[in-house]
Amino acid sequence: MLFHVRMDVSLPHDMDPNDRAELVRAEKDRALELQKMGVWPHLWRVVGQYSDISVFDVPSNDELHAFLSSLPLWEYMRVEVTPLATHPSDLAAQP
Amino acid sequence: MLFHVRMDVSLPHDMDPNDRAELVRAEKDRALELQKMGVWPHLWRVVGQYSDISVFDVPSNDELHAFLSSLPLWEYMRVEVTPLATHPSDLAAQP
Amino acid sequence: MLFHVRMDVSLPHDMDPNDRAELVRAEKDRALELQKMGVWPHLWRVVGQYSDISVFDVPSNDELHAFLSSLPLWEYMRVEVTPLATHPSDLAAQP
Amino acid sequence: MLFHVRMDVSLPHDMDPNDRAELVRAEKDRALELQKMGVWPHLWRVVGQYSDISVFDVPSNDELHAFLSSLPLWEYMRVEVTPLATHPSDLAAQP
Amino acid sequence: MLFHVRMDVSLPHDMDPNDRAELVRAEKDRALELQKMGVWPHLWRVVGQYSDISVFDVPSNDELHAFLSSLPLWEYMRVEVTPLATHPSDLAAQP
Amino acid sequence: MLFHVRMDVSLPHDMDPNDRAELVRAEKDRALELQKMGVWPHLWRVVGQYSDISVFDVPSNDELHAFLSSLPLWEYMRVEVTPLATHPSDLAAQP
Amino acid sequence: MLFHVRMDVSLPHDMDPNDRAELVRAEKDRALELQKMGVWPHLWRVVGQYSDISVFDVPSNDELHAFLSSLPLWEYMRVEVTPLATHPSDLAAQP
Amino acid sequence: MLFHVRMDVSLPHDMDPNDRAELVRAEKDRALELQKMGVWPHLWRVVGQYSDISVFDVPSNDELHAFLSSLPLWEYMRVEVTPLATHPSDLAAQP
Amino acid sequence: MLFHVRMDVSLPHDMDPNDRAELVRAEKDRALELQKMGVWPHLWRVVGQYSDISVFDVPSNDELHAFLSSLPLWEYMRVEVTPLATHPSDLAAQP
Amino acid sequence: MLFHVRMDVSLPHDMDPNDRAELVRAEKDRALELQKMGVWPHLWRVVGQYSDISVFDVPSNDELHAFLSSLPLWEYMRVEVTPLATHPSDLAAQP
Repeated sequence: MLFHVRMDVSLPHDMDPNDRAELVRAEKDRALELQKMGVWPHLWRVVGQYSDISVFDVPSNDELHAFLSSLPLWEYMRVEVTPLATHPSDLAAQP
Repeated sequence: MLFHVRMDVSLPHDMDPNDRAELVRAEKDRALELQKMGVWPHLWRVVGQYSDISVFDVPSNDELHAFLSSLPLWEYMRVEVTPLATHPSDLAAQP
Repeated sequence: MLFHVRMDVSLPHDMDPNDRAELVRAEKDRALELQKMGVWPHLWRVVGQYSDISVFDVPSNDELHAFLSSLPLWEYMRVEVTPLATHPSDLAAQP
Repeated sequence: MLFHVRMDVSLPHDMDPNDRAELVRAEKDRALELQKMGVWPHLWRVVGQYSDISVFDVPSNDELHAFLSSLPLWEYMRVEVTPLATHPSDLAAQP
Repeated sequence: MLFHVRMDVSLPHDMDPNDRAELVRAEKDRALELQKMGVWPHLWRVVGQYSDISVFDVPSNDELHAFLSSLPLWEYMRVEVTPLATHPSDLAAQP
Repeated sequence: MLFHVRMDVSLPHDMDPNDRAELVRAEKDRALELQKMGVWPHLWRVVGQYSDISVFDVPSNDELHAFLSSLPLWEYMRVEVTPLATHPSDLAAQP
Repeated sequence: MLFHVRMDVSLPHDMDPNDRAELVRAEKDRALELQKMGVWPHLWRVVGQYSDISVFDVPSNDELHAFLSSLPLWEYMRVEVTPLATHPSDLAAQP
Repeated sequence: MLFHVRMDVSLPHDMDPNDRAELVRAEKDRALELQKMGVWPHLWRVVGQYSDISVFDVPSNDELHAFLSSLPLWEYMRVEVTPLATHPSDLAAQP
Repeated sequence: MLFHVRMDVSLPHDMDPNDRAELVRAEKDRALELQKMGVWPHLWRVVGQYSDISVFDVPSNDELHAFLSSLPLWEYMRVEVTPLATHPSDLAAQP
Repeated sequence: MLFHVRMDVSLPHDMDPNDRAELVRAEKDRALELQKMGVWPHLWRVVGQYSDISVFDVPSNDELHAFLSSLPLWEYMRVEVTPLATHPSDLAAQP
């Protein structure tokens, strides 16, 4: 099942630079891990912002919440989840 | 170049049913045509709404506008375009 | 899987009264039908508004969209869908 | 009487981890307590966010405010209360 | 139980003047009737707008919804209901 | 002259508890004082929020601003003032 | 007493041109009349919009509402009223 | 003097096609005329929308309003004007 | 040329009281200075808020920005500037 | 390809003045550098605000993001990017 997820990140300006670098590194590792699991098929950067737009492919809402809340940056994000359905004009979905 | 596009459609309630059906049919034809051209790689339905979220892959802003404004339903849509860039944690973009 | 759904209905003031009554009757029939199927466990009226808040229990996003867009009043609604997950403090979910 | 309550929690990033854990633990205890009292029949997590959607069943506004403001996390929440009424299409409310 | 209710009225410009006058007359009658029943203790006009702010005193949510949706102008209103509780600094509530 | 006033209070989380208690106590004293002067006829708590809705009865805008800005919590409030007029359907205002 | 008033006018596109011209003419007459009475000391056009920003000087809320709702265009306006007080740095208010 | 102007156009769906074409043609003529006068140095289309972003260079607010309200489409536009000043980092403005 | 300016001030709660008093004093001095120069003809306090509404009369955008950004409190303000034009119904502007 | 970019800057009030001055100086250097490269043809200050409106001319979304995120002030900015296309009434674009 597909979910559109927008994540807007805002880190405190006075965060210790090393903590910050470590957090961002851990975030990247976790993101790569989830993509390799196949639950995170699309991940794009929003031009000009510390934000990204993703599409997750997960079996249930609970698992999606578990994945999202497992992200090291989660506490510093505003997250918006939009469930997606098959579009009647989707070329791949045509009979 | 990738662009995230959200389209919210609202057709007048008092539209002639035949005109409406014809318009929706023409919209589907045009959408399939653009997908076959490879400029519209992703098209999803937002659950519960007459809206969709797409990703376009086009060479320029001008061409994106030409494609979008060529959609039969364009006049009845609220359209929001967000330019996308490669995400540093995108698995496919790792060295 | 649970989804929180808010529906705000606005019917055209100049709608033919009989059409309106027929539409509202058909909406009620369909709502009862879906509730009997067990996919619509909660349906409440928002005090003071022609709006309701529901919880749907469905196996997939696609089915949720199919149910919602099958509602006779769908064309006259603003619909917002919020996926729900199990809350760690939910009494029923405690080990 | 039923009330729909949405709670969005935002804890200060620089909060002492132990204080934070203690607060969250106390919040869970209080939530379980209120659910056992029968005044908090529904509690769901909003997927992707430190937010929840609940339905409270209380005899009066004053008691609802007392319960909500008794939550340990209350000071760190944005709370929105929407009074609910019986829906004419609610299966359980049919004559 | 007290509820704060804001009502913003917008009547179609092309409404038949007689229908409009009749509707406004009926609205006033119903408002006076509810005030005489004691369920509508406060009713004020918002300066400059076809809007009013009221306080209702009702035993339940369901009755509040019944009263509000019984107003002849209800279909032409945007209604916002905010449940009120006793304020700890309310002079009348001091021990 | 009547004014509808909504006050949303947000105190810093890291405020010294004693300062906070003292401030809230001073706020209550001032609120009781103004109510005894007859300029603050209505004060209600918004259920679930550290907010209140009031009606002030004052001879002028300047005096209303003086009263509001004299509140100890004023610096920590978001305040919205809406001037009220007599409603044509107000029972008390009928000839 | 001073009140800041913003008026945003939107006339139906399909209004009869003569009715429209007559309405605008009547609006201007009434505006000039109120200015001559001294209750409307400032009236400016918002650049680029069919909107204006005014300052009214009136003895009471009720009179302000009476003046505003007497404007021929009132039914076609969105009106926002903000009560003004003397500013401590106003040159004219210095002792 | 420079002003940033955003114009969002929305024409009624049921407008007579010839009237519409005539109006759009007249709008283009007027736009070209103002650009030739040198008061409209920049005019861009917002991708995906019937909107544009412009920069006007005019001697006064009054003249800007006269130019904007002279546009045939003005009645069908939402217009937002933002006055611009020289930026301290503007290459062209460096001493 | 006239500009409507709204300024919403929010000073940090933990600011040193002396710095705060000094800043507010300097702000008043600068405001009086600009009013004496004739570029700030109107300055009113928004009732209930640490905000003011002003009208500036300046020869150019650049000068307006210079004056506004010269205010000691500027860094702590949210500022909104709306260019004003002569209103066709302004009594003072009638031929 | 042209992109409209709005940047709203908000620096922490308690930032060390020297760090602040250094950051602003570095921002200016980088801005001048990018303008000399020809990718930043327009840069204006929004009157009254620590904000600017720019037009960038870049070959791709990825490069635009690289340029924007290279700005020293980027972490302290809210950035909104709007892709621009050629306007059919643009004098320079006429055949």
